[in-house]
Amino acid sequence: MTINGVDTSTLFATIDVVKGQPELAQFQFRATNRWISGTHNRSTINGYFGAGQEHTRATDHRYDADHPPVLTGGDNGPTPVEFLLHALAACLTSGLANIAAARGIPLTEVSSTVEGDIDLQGILGIDKTVRNGYRGIRVSFELRGDATQEQLAALVEQSRKRSAVWDVLTNGVPVTIDVKAG
Amino acid sequence: MTINGVDTSTLFATIDVVKGQPELAQFQFRATNRWISGTHNRSTINGYFGAGQEHTRATDHRYDADHPPVLTGGDNGPTPVEFLLHALAACLTSGLANIAAARGIPLTEVSSTVEGDIDLQGILGIDKTVRNGYRGIRVSFELRGDATQEQLAALVEQSRKRSAVWDVLTNGVPVTIDVKAG
Repeated sequence: MTINGVDTSTLFATIDVVKGQPELAQFQFRATNRWISGTHNRSTINGYFGAGQEHTRATDHRYDADHPPVLTGGDNGPTPVEFLLHALAACLTSGLANIAAARGIPLTEVSSTVEGDIDLQGILGIDKTVRNGYRGIRVSFELRGDATQEQLAALVEQSRKRSAVWDVLTNGVPVTIDVKAG
Repeated sequence: MTINGVDTSTLFATIDVVKGQPELAQFQFRATNRWISGTHNRSTINGYFGAGQEHTRATDHRYDADHPPVLTGGDNGPTPVEFLLHALAACLTSGLANIAAARGIPLTEVSSTVEGDIDLQGILGIDKTVRNGYRGIRVSFELRGDATQEQLAALVEQSRKRSAVWDVLTNGVPVTIDVKAG
């Protein structure tokens, strides 16, 4: 049965298989990045490990990032912090569609806006009491579907509870850096 | 003077201007997202507020996200969590180029790989003791330039200390969600 473009029987079967073999749930995602010039650089996303094996997509996904002209950047792509907002909106929306399908709720429209406030006195080294990153992020969802307002709002809440990006952004994650120089 | 594609005199002048008018450092970045079908959705990034005014880019930047086939997704784009890895690599690299320029160090090559490990038993609701997001992220930098290995490695360390994405990913950020349903 397919609802919202989600094949729910395959989704449930997948979850059942992973329940019996938790090693299939171990994933590793990757991105590589190459500096181009100034604050302009480009990431490539393709292979990942998961469900017990390595996966390669048919084509590489490439994303440019840069700083804006007001920060003496070249504006050859969004800023790195804008990609965080995209990741958050995308994660909540993907999860929401799966959850709505699992609950038998047909959706007709889901859109969202994400805003992040940041005081650049941190990264510019002007005020050490100001954090480098966003001080807060707001997500605004609008959704329509064949369900009550309460049922639709509950989809967003359940998606939040199961969102990988929400978890990382609100709780943080250990990150290590290794450098080969010279 | 331009080094590594960074106009350092403009960069220093910008920092000086912001020092005198900290309200210019207040930025708001944004992304909008629209659900397409299943776990496939698309974000648009364009306008932002900063340096005291609203900015609009010449063209919208659009990014598709989806889940992979092994998670019953359509693979129409990277997963949302992969965009987090891109954001981290891009932020560290942009900062590094600025810092190298400020220190008079010409770079010839900067590349990085970011890997994130995640146990999907969390988001699949199989094991409530498993977190939804990455349990850890590793960044590996390779860089070459006209400086000692220690000076090059110090660029990465300083960029980490001033990175907005590093701060958000390692320390977390408050996020709120508002829903209009029906």
